[in-house]
Amino acid sequence: MKRVMLTIAYDGTDYHGWQIQENGNTVEGELNKAIMQLTGENVELIGGSRTDAGVHALCNVAVFDTESSIPGDKFMYALNQRLDKSIRVVDSKDVEADFHPRHCDTKKTYEYRILNTKIPIPTKRLYAYHTYIPLDINRMQEASKYIEGEHDFSAFCSAGAQVDSKVRTVYSCNVTKNGDDIIISVSGNGFLYNMVRIIAGTLMEAGFGRIEPAYVESIINSMDRAKAGPTAPACGLCLVKYEFLDD
Amino acid sequence: MKRVMLTIAYDGTDYHGWQIQENGNTVEGELNKAIMQLTGENVELIGGSRTDAGVHALCNVAVFDTESSIPGDKFMYALNQRLDKSIRVVDSKDVEADFHPRHCDTKKTYEYRILNTKIPIPTKRLYAYHTYIPLDINRMQEASKYIEGEHDFSAFCSAGAQVDSKVRTVYSCNVTKNGDDIIISVSGNGFLYNMVRIIAGTLMEAGFGRIEPAYVESIINSMDRAKAGPTAPACGLCLVKYEFLDD
Repeated sequence: MKRVMLTIAYDGTDYHGWQIQENGNTVEGELNKAIMQLTGENVELIGGSRTDAGVHALCNVAVFDTESSIPGDKFMYALNQRLDKSIRVVDSKDVEADFHPRHCDTKKTYEYRILNTKIPIPTKRLYAYHTYIPLDINRMQEASKYIEGEHDFSAFCSAGAQVDSKVRTVYSCNVTKNGDDIIISVSGNGFLYNMVRIIAGTLMEAGFGRIEPAYVESIINSMDRAKAGPTAPACGLCLVKYEFLDD
Repeated sequence: MKRVMLTIAYDGTDYHGWQIQENGNTVEGELNKAIMQLTGENVELIGGSRTDAGVHALCNVAVFDTESSIPGDKFMYALNQRLDKSIRVVDSKDVEADFHPRHCDTKKTYEYRILNTKIPIPTKRLYAYHTYIPLDINRMQEASKYIEGEHDFSAFCSAGAQVDSKVRTVYSCNVTKNGDDIIISVSGNGFLYNMVRIIAGTLMEAGFGRIEPAYVESIINSMDRAKAGPTAPACGLCLVKYEFLDD
């Protein structure tokens, strides 16, 4: 028995998120099927980030235990032959038997992409949230600085999350512009349920001029979900980097 | 009766190209249906570029005649309400009654996008051609310069094209790199059937080291389709700019 780690990229458009469920295709479910086809084993995957329905990833991670003699670095090619092109294993390797991606110190980076044009661009519609209302990027940048640091992010957590502590550290929160795209990039040691999408929804409220940038500090201090902005749509979100700090 | 010009963006993934046909959805067909719903008229659209199945556009153009009293600039909003999100009218306006987009001096710009990574990225698979074989961008740039200018492009035209002359002017042909994406940008006064995709396929042959960059000149002079590279897949191609020079 050995433990293998996969790094997985996916287009979340047609999936009901990462986590396996009774109804609807999930990324975990598709990986399970591919591993079953390859090794004959019904493995249990331990995922790094349980992304929501419609959210994309360049580098989510998962580990599983196998009796297979296939070398860790060969799983990538063998699984890709058995997966739909909307999911690709971009790396695979053998890891220590007790390696658990959620029990490590990690730095995860998400990007939330907004297309700010009068009319949406069809070729971007699956990977960016479109709004025709002009966004003031300076106000968004000012607001983003209040997100950085260690805070209780209760105000940025959707109901239904079962966690002991809602304290998380955001290492950086930056807002940049690339043509008509506005990209919110958030790095942290962990994220609560819908946290990045609520941060995006809140920074957009500042960008629209509906709240003052400095009001974000009050939102955090209130620990009240109702004070923060709406949960921005899933399609704009992508997990772009997953780093193990104690590797 | 008046003539209206539409500028149209579309995700070509699920369409059998621009031109209306008996089997399969086309961009022209979807626009026709939307105009019928809006005005009750069965109009004939005159398209600017009859893009192939799977090819994308940010700015194709089309004109049609209508008895409708809707101001030209309002068609955009009214049609977008009746179209799938994979097609957006990004501009509309009244034009002269004899304005014909294919009888004007124009400059069209196409981009062909290649993703050059070991493993394809799922969120890019619909809008770029993936090859894991390393491309030498310097060789591609050198080869691209032979494409520029006025030439008989018979070697870069698929069978089935019914045109009198295969002489076209390519104003510029550039190859640039943006992260893992290689973008071939081609501007010209007109393009033959599959011309940009054959140019892309040929520049890739130079990038792979299979032909010398200078050999592209011999390919043009041969006027022999068999000498040029393969027709690169449709998904990588996008019509990005459509300019009327005598406007």
